Amino acid sequence: MEIRSKIWIEVNGQPVFGNGRQDLLHAIDEHGSINRAAKEVQLSYRKALSYIQAMEERLGTALVERKTGGKDGGGARLTDRARDFLKKYDELEEGVNEFVDRKFRKTFKK
Amino acid sequence: MEIRSKIWIEVNGQPVFGNGRQDLLHAIDEHGSINRAAKEVQLSYRKALSYIQAMEERLGTALVERKTGGKDGGGARLTDRARDFLKKYDELEEGVNEFVDRKFRKTFKK
Repeated sequence: MEIRSKIWIEVNGQPVFGNGRQDLLHAIDEHGSINRAAKEVQLSYRKALSYIQAMEERLGTALVERKTGGKDGGGARLTDRARDFLKKYDELEEGVNEFVDRKFRKTFKK
Repeated sequence: MEIRSKIWIEVNGQPVFGNGRQDLLHAIDEHGSINRAAKEVQLSYRKALSYIQAMEERLGTALVERKTGGKDGGGARLTDRARDFLKKYDELEEGVNEFVDRKFRKTFKK
């Protein structure tokens, strides 16, 4: 018997951030490209873009900067705000997982 | 911006207990009838029964006792094990919600 948990953020009752978007932002951070990030998380480029735009709108902050030109034909990077947000969210998720596991072991498996 | 969370229990990677089953057991406890409980949580009687049987099988314990006969033509009640399980699960869920809210306020809204 295992406990599972998940968290997400809502704005006005609408989900705006959860596992999928978290993975997308991490992939952008890693690959420096929306296109490659979208491939990794198995989204179309258009879908990834629309997710990013929706997040930026609902959270009211710029999350991804697109660079144009250069050797690799441009790319993308997370803004400092996005990186800070993602870090806090990762830590929150990790804290929740630890809390849930510990509490579950304590109450259910004694 | 609000944080949301949910928990559920898995056995061998299969979900066996979460919000829906929790509501069903609470409704049985309240109404003393699988039929009325099923109506409240908007399940067919057959579906409710199959959920209960699956839970009992996977958790390896009897959860609902059915009484036959009597003034009201029988009924159902939770076993002590089920009531104990449900109480612990409710408390775990509440604890997780409180933890998540507190942590979220602390990290995201300062």
